[in-house]
Amino acid sequence: MGTELRRNGNFINYVKKNPVEFEQFEALQNSGVLDSLYESLTLKETAAAHYQSLPSIVKGRIRALKRIQYETLKLEVQFYKELAKLESRFVDKHKQLFDKRQAIVSGEIEPSAEETTWYLSDDEDVECSVKFMKSSNEGDSSVETSSHNLNKTHPKGIPGFWLTVLKHAPLICDIIRPADIPALTHLKDIRAVPLENNDIMGFQLEFEFEPNEYFTNKVLTKRYYLGYELREDNPLSYDGPEVTSSEGCTINWNPDRDLTAISSTKLNRSRTGEERQPYSRSMESFFQFFDPPQPTSTPKGTNPDLEQKLMDDYDLGQYLKERVIPRAVTYFTGEALDLDNEVDDPDDFPDDDLDDESDEDVDDGEEP
Amino acid sequence: MGTELRRNGNFINYVKKNPVEFEQFEALQNSGVLDSLYESLTLKETAAAHYQSLPSIVKGRIRALKRIQYETLKLEVQFYKELAKLESRFVDKHKQLFDKRQAIVSGEIEPSAEETTWYLSDDEDVECSVKFMKSSNEGDSSVETSSHNLNKTHPKGIPGFWLTVLKHAPLICDIIRPADIPALTHLKDIRAVPLENNDIMGFQLEFEFEPNEYFTNKVLTKRYYLGYELREDNPLSYDGPEVTSSEGCTINWNPDRDLTAISSTKLNRSRTGEERQPYSRSMESFFQFFDPPQPTSTPKGTNPDLEQKLMDDYDLGQYLKERVIPRAVTYFTGEALDLDNEVDDPDDFPDDDLDDESDEDVDDGEEP
Repeated sequence: MGTELRRNGNFINYVKKNPVEFEQFEALQNSGVLDSLYESLTLKETAAAHYQSLPSIVKGRIRALKRIQYETLKLEVQFYKELAKLESRFVDKHKQLFDKRQAIVSGEIEPSAEETTWYLSDDEDVECSVKFMKSSNEGDSSVETSSHNLNKTHPKGIPGFWLTVLKHAPLICDIIRPADIPALTHLKDIRAVPLENNDIMGFQLEFEFEPNEYFTNKVLTKRYYLGYELREDNPLSYDGPEVTSSEGCTINWNPDRDLTAISSTKLNRSRTGEERQPYSRSMESFFQFFDPPQPTSTPKGTNPDLEQKLMDDYDLGQYLKERVIPRAVTYFTGEALDLDNEVDDPDDFPDDDLDDESDEDVDDGEEP
Repeated sequence: MGTELRRNGNFINYVKKNPVEFEQFEALQNSGVLDSLYESLTLKETAAAHYQSLPSIVKGRIRALKRIQYETLKLEVQFYKELAKLESRFVDKHKQLFDKRQAIVSGEIEPSAEETTWYLSDDEDVECSVKFMKSSNEGDSSVETSSHNLNKTHPKGIPGFWLTVLKHAPLICDIIRPADIPALTHLKDIRAVPLENNDIMGFQLEFEFEPNEYFTNKVLTKRYYLGYELREDNPLSYDGPEVTSSEGCTINWNPDRDLTAISSTKLNRSRTGEERQPYSRSMESFFQFFDPPQPTSTPKGTNPDLEQKLMDDYDLGQYLKERVIPRAVTYFTGEALDLDNEVDDPDDFPDDDLDDESDEDVDDGEEP
């Protein structure tokens, strides 16, 4: 043993080929040799080397602990299934609120003056609210019936609500191309619906559109299937249910309106560049989200490009379901970005100090 | 408007001071001026500018959506409370398994030959297992009564199990100083126990020690209190229950054995360096974990150092409860590190390729 073993990994190979007995193990532990060797290894290598250096009787006890961990994880599977039931009990309660949101966004209902006051709005907003309350009561005393009059001089509902939400959601904004925008202005609603079949667990994202010139579908769907059970080949790696596959839908494009075809041609033309962009940036149209990559049966690590594409696709689906759909209005206003900021890599977001400065310096510079 | 407005933030200030009416809004939308301005802004600034540019009637509808989001989040609070109940139903089931793990770790029980076979062990391990089964059956035909004999020639249980687990857990290994190690070899068990009081939600971490020369406590405790409700000053930022404070315990150090005092002196001596290390690295002893920082009532942002310390402390507690305690054996062997790798920033971990190489190149080099 000596300098040679200090090179990464060699020590692990050494102990693999020279399993120590207890006397040697004790001698190694006491000599400090192990500690100085560990210093040159990564955490995972240190752990593997330590495990390999153990006497076989201790390794046996470790295997007994693995069997116990296996039982622990089977309990976790049960727990996650119960959790899915609990979640589905809340789906209906949420649906009522999301339906009301959709009706306001589309302009089907006009919120009453009271409903448009929000206790935490800043001063300017409150002024606006008062102004709005006055103006909406001036024309017609009944707020409910005033919506027809309002439409003549004011926009209906919240124009481009869902497009704006998607443009302000960090993972999603990267896959929206300028050519997609006119089609996405027709988005009426985005919903996440649990898959009800007992054998299949997962959820369906539903993108509802107004009639538009691009395609004839009323709803575009994307399904995510979740695996709840332990993987037989690596059960101890279990970390809760995960997406195992996704399924898109056929978009019935009108003639010459296929946004995925158009942008595909564009991309081919510029394919001379050397830069390799990550998947999310090389997506040719937002609508390719409905034609997701499919997993293969090849072992992990053989196709890292595909694996990255799959992971990005699954991340997008979960992100829409867990964050964007339930918190849409705060993505619209940008307030949700603070939360995403904490969750994601802070390097993805520009310096917050700039924001603070610009907010505080309202009175500087451009006074009228 | 013009180049001046393209500087970050100025456009937001402009629209704040010049709220537009609907006619102007439509003109702005159609002119493309907004789009070119947005290009120079961060995502959050774009969102704020877009919101500010909306006609007041649309802002009113947005506020109505905020009220709906508030109701949605109140449902989430209910959901998380139900989830806590569901979790506590699983605590007892897990406890039985964790107690058995503790008994094997401490050597109180010796697993049977069958219990030490794990179907996914590599070949060498299986050989060891067979060897162990033979040797443990040679001396005494009853595995249960053989433990006394084993103790004479073999280590009891799994020596240094919990110290090894902590040393292999990314967030924790950074706060273990060399001086802490002799004391941490006496760790018998680490448990997470829910706080049972109805008014208080949270959990207690219990570090059980063998009698040792450092302190007289049998168990060191750390409590984490969770806030489940929406924060009144910022309800829409709700993202599930979060730790609001933590509470340590008094360590009854034996004379001249206080590891926090010793290392504190050491640190003072070297305080001339200019480098500012993150909290987790500047912790002077692992045992300071039981004397956590306390939140103040000052507004957020006024004491970023303290806020970072608090966040680190809460992260450590959650990480121990959620990952390290339930998956201890795979932290011991290093297998859990792949999982942490996916969850955390990949930059925290050295190149995986090295691992792969060293695993595959077992037959190269050092043949005997």
